[in-house]
Amino acid sequence: MPTTDPAGLSPTLQLAFELLRRPSVTPDDLGCQDLMIERLEALGFHVERLPFGDVENFWATRGHHGPLLAFAGHTDVVPSGPHVRWDYPPFEPCIDDDGMLRGRGAADMKGSLAAMVTAVERFVAAHPDHHGKIGFLITSDEEGPAVDGTRAVVEHLRERHERLDYCIVGEPSSSEALGDVIKNGRRGSLGGVLHVKGTQGHVAYPHLASNPIHQAMPALNALVNECWDGGNAFFPATSFQISNFRAGTGATNVIPGEVEVVFNFRFSTEVTHRELQARTASLLDAHGLDYHIDWTLNGEPFLTAEGELVEAALHGVESVMGRQPRLSTSGGTSDGRFIATLGSQVVELGPCNATIHQANERIHAADLDDLSRIYEAVLTKLFVNGSAQP
Amino acid sequence: MPTTDPAGLSPTLQLAFELLRRPSVTPDDLGCQDLMIERLEALGFHVERLPFGDVENFWATRGHHGPLLAFAGHTDVVPSGPHVRWDYPPFEPCIDDDGMLRGRGAADMKGSLAAMVTAVERFVAAHPDHHGKIGFLITSDEEGPAVDGTRAVVEHLRERHERLDYCIVGEPSSSEALGDVIKNGRRGSLGGVLHVKGTQGHVAYPHLASNPIHQAMPALNALVNECWDGGNAFFPATSFQISNFRAGTGATNVIPGEVEVVFNFRFSTEVTHRELQARTASLLDAHGLDYHIDWTLNGEPFLTAEGELVEAALHGVESVMGRQPRLSTSGGTSDGRFIATLGSQVVELGPCNATIHQANERIHAADLDDLSRIYEAVLTKLFVNGSAQP
Repeated sequence: MPTTDPAGLSPTLQLAFELLRRPSVTPDDLGCQDLMIERLEALGFHVERLPFGDVENFWATRGHHGPLLAFAGHTDVVPSGPHVRWDYPPFEPCIDDDGMLRGRGAADMKGSLAAMVTAVERFVAAHPDHHGKIGFLITSDEEGPAVDGTRAVVEHLRERHERLDYCIVGEPSSSEALGDVIKNGRRGSLGGVLHVKGTQGHVAYPHLASNPIHQAMPALNALVNECWDGGNAFFPATSFQISNFRAGTGATNVIPGEVEVVFNFRFSTEVTHRELQARTASLLDAHGLDYHIDWTLNGEPFLTAEGELVEAALHGVESVMGRQPRLSTSGGTSDGRFIATLGSQVVELGPCNATIHQANERIHAADLDDLSRIYEAVLTKLFVNGSAQP
Repeated sequence: MPTTDPAGLSPTLQLAFELLRRPSVTPDDLGCQDLMIERLEALGFHVERLPFGDVENFWATRGHHGPLLAFAGHTDVVPSGPHVRWDYPPFEPCIDDDGMLRGRGAADMKGSLAAMVTAVERFVAAHPDHHGKIGFLITSDEEGPAVDGTRAVVEHLRERHERLDYCIVGEPSSSEALGDVIKNGRRGSLGGVLHVKGTQGHVAYPHLASNPIHQAMPALNALVNECWDGGNAFFPATSFQISNFRAGTGATNVIPGEVEVVFNFRFSTEVTHRELQARTASLLDAHGLDYHIDWTLNGEPFLTAEGELVEAALHGVESVMGRQPRLSTSGGTSDGRFIATLGSQVVELGPCNATIHQANERIHAADLDDLSRIYEAVLTKLFVNGSAQP
């Protein structure tokens, strides 16, 4: 029988249950931040609510001296999709017979939020006058447009010249086992919407028309085959993918007048987004296309190659889990891209990501207690035993 | 100022205005056939409405003896596309300051329908007891699937063993000037819907996906660049055009699992449709695609190399326009392909086709009055002065 009653569970799992019960699909928070704020204020945190648009955010700090370590995360979750595809209801958390904590957000990332809060509770109890400052940067829009969430809070902090030395983002970085991967950077993401113009006409009179599909394909082929860079020690090679291709009126006898192609670069620190834009234009120009591109820079690449935070995170996983994490920059974007612009050292460290954004999202329940101990160990390493000591 | 009020225009242009005002996009007729039927019944035509599926058709005849000359045409038009690309609203006909009749269907082929009706009106007034039979075979689906239109009516006439000796299709056959080209045959048309399968995935993890857009493009390029044949004395070279290309979920971060490409061959009598199918498959196989093609043979090529109808049509243009038409088989398919299967002599004779299926479709307004006189001259040549005399 699955466990649906949190009484008797660890404080971390009890808080995770409370967060998972709230169907806080982007940009809704539905009281998740209230739960966190109540716990943090009880610890003496100073809390500022920073709503922007329809997005709830808060920034909380404790301590007055030394470097600041922020825990960053989001209370919003992606939609569950049809409930029939879930073995258990997505917003009624439980621990199944295999010890898996189930529910939308278990891995991404309400489990991490619970682990952060309980880690700080134990740390503050043990070190009420700790060196350093502890912060929480929490948003309810990481999975959506991500405009009024962390990005807006970061701009607010930048205007106030707040220092944010270290940041642990609770994104599910782990692959096979808790802590096996720590993300110490992310590729950049550059999106483009390409319109190629031709001349509409009848398929029987191709000499009176100019088929933009025929014209675009050799140029797009060249973009697909281009070697944009070779990557480097931290990043895989930059990749180019076409996600959408739309042309045609629907009629089978009409040569369309225009093609729309949506594409995306995931890029390393070996190129800049401006270089990618220029090289794309150059290739399209070489094919003589009549075109226009609308660009969207979703995020610059960022990297925390080394430093006290990476050391503390590696130490935290090793001491709690007895395993050596691998540093990686693979995968999608995260709010780390915004925080890194403050000059912060940023790592992402959270539970296993195998089931995120899918039906039956779940993680080992025991991993959350371990994750809480890892976060606590990072705090201890930085502010009690470690390199960030005064 | 453009002329938007048809009062004061010729009967042909007045009827053209009435037809053009109806946005009868395939397969809608929107009362166009009612307008024609009213006029033909007033002339003593026997009219049969022959709807099939959601397509309106009619077959009308006048006269009881001798060979039958049918005027064939369609009341449907292709979609206008975005209205912003039109200098004048597509379904509000006008004659602009350059004397151009403007509107979707002006050339293809509501103008011809008006010219046919007024030609017959004058011919019947002059020869109420004419030799020969005059027919009208009108459909509202020539631009679409063309299954329940002329094809179905022809099958109906075939079952009744009706004789259809001569047919003038009002398709816009002219190139630079009215009557400069008469079509005495048409290329074949072979359509294909190609599905290429890949593996869906996240754009950030291209190594876990297989992008069917990227895979399809080199193979499609090869099809575009292939020389299918060199044509012959009656037919231009076979051409290949892609009309529609659809791929993508709409999301910018998802590699799609499938591509749908709609293409079309216009082919000469130098190749068969089976040869084209085999060569297409061979090229796609060579590129290692996982694909499927649904083929549609829209029409085999047909030809009316000579005979009384071609003579009468040449004479009609020469007598009205003072120019010598060129016989041609170029351009699209037309419903002539179905009618030719009855053993009929078939020509296509209509206005200039430079703007058909494009924004700002237009023809010289004066051409419609001339076209009506040409049609009348063909009737007179065949049934009063000419070779079809008893």
